[in-house]
Amino acid sequence: MNKLKTTLFLFAISFSTIAQQKPQNVIFMIGDGMGLSQISTAIHFKGSPSAFEQFKHIGFVKTSSAVQKVTDSAGAATAYATGQKSFNRAISVNTDSVAIPTILEQLEAKNFATGLISICSITDATPACFYAHATDRGQHEIIAAQLPASGVDFVAGGGRQYFTSRADGMNYLDDLKKRGYQVDTTVRYDQINSSQKYAYLVHETNLPGRHEGRDDYFPKTLNTAIQYFSGKKENFFLMAEGSYIDWAGHRNDKEMMIAEQLDFDEALQIAIDFVKKDKNTLLIVTADHETGGTAVTKGATQDQLNVEFVTDQHTATMVPIFAMGPGAELFQGIYENNEVYHKLRALIDF
Amino acid sequence: MNKLKTTLFLFAISFSTIAQQKPQNVIFMIGDGMGLSQISTAIHFKGSPSAFEQFKHIGFVKTSSAVQKVTDSAGAATAYATGQKSFNRAISVNTDSVAIPTILEQLEAKNFATGLISICSITDATPACFYAHATDRGQHEIIAAQLPASGVDFVAGGGRQYFTSRADGMNYLDDLKKRGYQVDTTVRYDQINSSQKYAYLVHETNLPGRHEGRDDYFPKTLNTAIQYFSGKKENFFLMAEGSYIDWAGHRNDKEMMIAEQLDFDEALQIAIDFVKKDKNTLLIVTADHETGGTAVTKGATQDQLNVEFVTDQHTATMVPIFAMGPGAELFQGIYENNEVYHKLRALIDF
Repeated sequence: MNKLKTTLFLFAISFSTIAQQKPQNVIFMIGDGMGLSQISTAIHFKGSPSAFEQFKHIGFVKTSSAVQKVTDSAGAATAYATGQKSFNRAISVNTDSVAIPTILEQLEAKNFATGLISICSITDATPACFYAHATDRGQHEIIAAQLPASGVDFVAGGGRQYFTSRADGMNYLDDLKKRGYQVDTTVRYDQINSSQKYAYLVHETNLPGRHEGRDDYFPKTLNTAIQYFSGKKENFFLMAEGSYIDWAGHRNDKEMMIAEQLDFDEALQIAIDFVKKDKNTLLIVTADHETGGTAVTKGATQDQLNVEFVTDQHTATMVPIFAMGPGAELFQGIYENNEVYHKLRALIDF
Repeated sequence: MNKLKTTLFLFAISFSTIAQQKPQNVIFMIGDGMGLSQISTAIHFKGSPSAFEQFKHIGFVKTSSAVQKVTDSAGAATAYATGQKSFNRAISVNTDSVAIPTILEQLEAKNFATGLISICSITDATPACFYAHATDRGQHEIIAAQLPASGVDFVAGGGRQYFTSRADGMNYLDDLKKRGYQVDTTVRYDQINSSQKYAYLVHETNLPGRHEGRDDYFPKTLNTAIQYFSGKKENFFLMAEGSYIDWAGHRNDKEMMIAEQLDFDEALQIAIDFVKKDKNTLLIVTADHETGGTAVTKGATQDQLNVEFVTDQHTATMVPIFAMGPGAELFQGIYENNEVYHKLRALIDF
């Protein structure tokens, strides 16, 4: 009977590894405009292995919006945040312009702690789609006004002007303070209190590019947020956007592309280190679309490479999606962008 | 005790699904120049789901050769066929120009049945690297002379001139016949005898593009080869190259790109159907490199798409790799092109 018990034990171990594992927490990293050539840039120019090389579970996302074959960030982020494809420029409204619930709102209602990090304005399309609803991504003041009531626990990004210098004369930083937020213009990397809410509006508009003087704000803020959520008893959902990979594509700027992709890689490694240690967190890394029709091309000599662009616009080439942690295998294969939401919903009850 | 037996039975089932499965046969499909945008072309322009959408196990291959950051087809196929990176233009010789054994030769020695299919000359870089050794891919006559003794069981492709109209006056089609090959200028799709060897040299040079009048030669020949190998008692290794996806990139020819990618998709579906039914065959689909810095871009209206190119050369952007069947999970992640050979070697004893 002892032998039988050992056999049962071994089988139980095997069984536990194939049963669908459910994550408690989700870190969703979006490299805006980050196609396969952008990721290849990190591979070729980093000088050491890229954080992407640690992933096993890989898929491809089809990015078209409900109306346009070539999506914008708003249409794509609406699909990720709500599970519904909509029109370009939509901020989590459906094709009838009706507000639809976002994963962040739904997880808030389920008592999750939530966070949002961006490098550009926190009212820009990608972060906005997780907490706000608007018929046009350009409605920054309408979007900003929805942040305080969203319940998000940790926010860091630019766009302070949309909270303070408004046509309606309101000051939504005051509103955030009244709701108990610690509001600041710099991220306090070493003063983190998990029972506090934080709104870091670190720039009036958008932070500079990493090649233009931005420091390691993005990886350090991601690290701070992870420490913050680790100190809470609630499960958490954190979205972090590497915003300027897209901008480098629009500008056809090779130097900026490499700098922003390596910045993203640095942040990604922090997320991976946490996920590997924590074992209850699902990490998803993808893009909203590819920007620039970017290619890693021949350099001046056979040892050198260049980065070139076919367009200053977005493309409809599929984007890679990487997953790590419990449930990662669900993100393999080729599927539509709004399926990411439904896969998360299949893993977490919300 | 009955309950215990049921539990054991269920655990045993679970256990069997996670143990490393070994394939008996391998189908290795190479879309020459087929990057993610080329595959996205099939997704967007097919009008029905692409065969690629049936894959779960996906990875990325780093394509640089040992000498050049941007590989050519010869350098890449040498890495796939031998497990060693070499210089561009190398046909399965190492960086010291010494011939090194190929997977096809090694599997022949292990009593595998083997096959090669291409659309261009069977002496071109990609197929050549599996059966021949030469210091330069342009040595077509030297390469052709090595085909008869290679032992390959089923060959189809162009390049007949290199066997018959040679500087040395030799006729290697006669040599093939002497060795018992059925030699023909068209593939006999309905006359397949698994105890016969076949050498189909179907064109003097290279077949035309699919958009220039080539029929469904590639999918039909792949289907014929699969039927042929299915009738043999030996395990098999079959390499099939979609040669002209690369040419479309070099020509910056959108129409050709779509036609060749859809042709490849048609052949891929045939391979997938077999793999799903057979259950003992590993299907690997990848590219040697990306060509053209290709992007799927905005068309004239929001419903339309275009295909554009940043270069008429190869790029160093990573290429996707897809796997299905026993051992497929080994091909996940990001790794160097020569690792594909070593992964196959870990799965099949050769």
